[in-house]
Amino acid sequence: MSLDSPITKPHERLAAALADEMGAVNALIRDRMASEHAPRIPEVTAHLVEAGGKRLRPMLTLATAKMCGYDGPFHIHLAATVEFIHTATLLHDDVVDESNQRRGRPTANLLWDNKSSVLVGDYLFARSFQLMVETGSLRVLDILSNAAATIAEGEVLQLTAAQDLRTTEATYTQVVRGKTAALFAAATEVGGVIAGRSEDEIKALFDYGDALGIAFQIVDDLLDYWGTDATGKNVGDDFRERKLTLPLIKAVAKADDTERAFWKRVIEKGDQRDGDLEHAIELLNRHGALEETRQDALAWAARANTAMASLPKSDLRDMLIDLNDYVVARVS
Amino acid sequence: MSLDSPITKPHERLAAALADEMGAVNALIRDRMASEHAPRIPEVTAHLVEAGGKRLRPMLTLATAKMCGYDGPFHIHLAATVEFIHTATLLHDDVVDESNQRRGRPTANLLWDNKSSVLVGDYLFARSFQLMVETGSLRVLDILSNAAATIAEGEVLQLTAAQDLRTTEATYTQVVRGKTAALFAAATEVGGVIAGRSEDEIKALFDYGDALGIAFQIVDDLLDYWGTDATGKNVGDDFRERKLTLPLIKAVAKADDTERAFWKRVIEKGDQRDGDLEHAIELLNRHGALEETRQDALAWAARANTAMASLPKSDLRDMLIDLNDYVVARVS
Repeated sequence: MSLDSPITKPHERLAAALADEMGAVNALIRDRMASEHAPRIPEVTAHLVEAGGKRLRPMLTLATAKMCGYDGPFHIHLAATVEFIHTATLLHDDVVDESNQRRGRPTANLLWDNKSSVLVGDYLFARSFQLMVETGSLRVLDILSNAAATIAEGEVLQLTAAQDLRTTEATYTQVVRGKTAALFAAATEVGGVIAGRSEDEIKALFDYGDALGIAFQIVDDLLDYWGTDATGKNVGDDFRERKLTLPLIKAVAKADDTERAFWKRVIEKGDQRDGDLEHAIELLNRHGALEETRQDALAWAARANTAMASLPKSDLRDMLIDLNDYVVARVS
Repeated sequence: MSLDSPITKPHERLAAALADEMGAVNALIRDRMASEHAPRIPEVTAHLVEAGGKRLRPMLTLATAKMCGYDGPFHIHLAATVEFIHTATLLHDDVVDESNQRRGRPTANLLWDNKSSVLVGDYLFARSFQLMVETGSLRVLDILSNAAATIAEGEVLQLTAAQDLRTTEATYTQVVRGKTAALFAAATEVGGVIAGRSEDEIKALFDYGDALGIAFQIVDDLLDYWGTDATGKNVGDDFRERKLTLPLIKAVAKADDTERAFWKRVIEKGDQRDGDLEHAIELLNRHGALEETRQDALAWAARANTAMASLPKSDLRDMLIDLNDYVVARVS
């Protein structure tokens, strides 16, 4: 994440262009994460919300609404909605993954307990729906409730596919759509919807968010085998957690009997020894799995750019194209 | 729950009066708990949904909509919504309470795992919002998203109040509104809302559901110290789980120093020995805590009946009054 100097990072330029709106979003988030009766709720939420995530998803909503000429107040509500849904899924993910660290800090389930993470996540989901209701748009509620269902479905699918060497690329794409792309796509789609744009334009915004989300997740999964200090990723996490991500799925598909026995031992049985990660990376390279994964990410990024380029030119539109380029620049 | 013969049980008479509608609700539930991509979801959901709960909450929505003269299709959607929200909270509750049994069967978190319970619960929450969106009523969405927030808030409050001897009756009522009454009240309120009744009538329906829910939960908590085989309750569960329910709160408020030391040991420290439950029940009786709790339940039930009796007379209205009487009959 330090490929270039701060001033040129597209998400920072977006944040600068949307500074006023993001200020309003952050104020709304602080206001709505409060609870009159249960102080544990803002404690847990603040731990996550103030941990300094990049606020990518709310920025997508603000940017798309603004580039579509929206001048009402509700893009702020929708951006906060999207961040609440994201935060709720992070809380539940950490319980499901039994994680101890998130964004370099101890997770809520470690600091409090799994119970608090489950229930505070539920609270944030409910709060996110309250925010949507305030917009008065049934279409927005439809889009975001569908996204919430797709997210949960993708997470369950990921759970049942874990450690299963038969996992296909189609299943992987389905999981990624759920865990990442559904919320990206909803975040960009609702920007066009509240601005009252044409169906073609709304579809283009959806396609941009969907493809950006998939590219984003593929790059993340690729860097788990291909990362360097510069990317800030901890190489081998997915391998140790025995996740069937795209590079692995591609290598398993081309494995000979000896290699298949290796994958069965380390992924299915979870019997991992010194040198196994290095051997896994060697197999991924031998079969061109990392390069193919990289090409897939670039193809999704190209789709995102095609969709966005179909919309009227504006500074924000070009920043969203740059953001997309930046996501894959980490592996270009 | 076997105080009288099956034919006279009010919830069974309600079920008979609403048989067609409940058939439609069950069909809708089966349809919407399906998942194209993640078969784990209907497995887990079917385990709970088909476990033979009394479907009290969806019946409240059907009965109130019908007694208010509603003749559209959406009370079916709302009844399914309410049951989905209830099922989702049960799934999450069992994770939070680390339960092994629910309705006499092993819980989903035991049969599958906590992860599945968390994620399938999330899926059902999302599905419930999709169902609400289909009704096209923003007011209904407002009511039910508020209820969902109150439920989660009540659960968090219960979590942080557990084992805390300073818990007040006001906090207890707040918890009970969250864990039980909020969904009862929303279930009855939306029946009047989709039927387009006056604000006074909608308020009366809300008040009925709210008071019924609180009476229901107080009775449940009372029977945990006062139950017999006939009530089907397992006496002492709350004591062993160190929950500050109403009988205990009342007894602790009147405790002398020796008694306070006892409560500190068994509830705060959780150091429970043979004979402690019997001694606790003796203390509850000594201070009239069980009798006072019973009177509180009766007072809430009276409020529920007053609210319902303010509405136009009909067979369904009278069945709802009978249902409320039946709830407290277990302790009358």
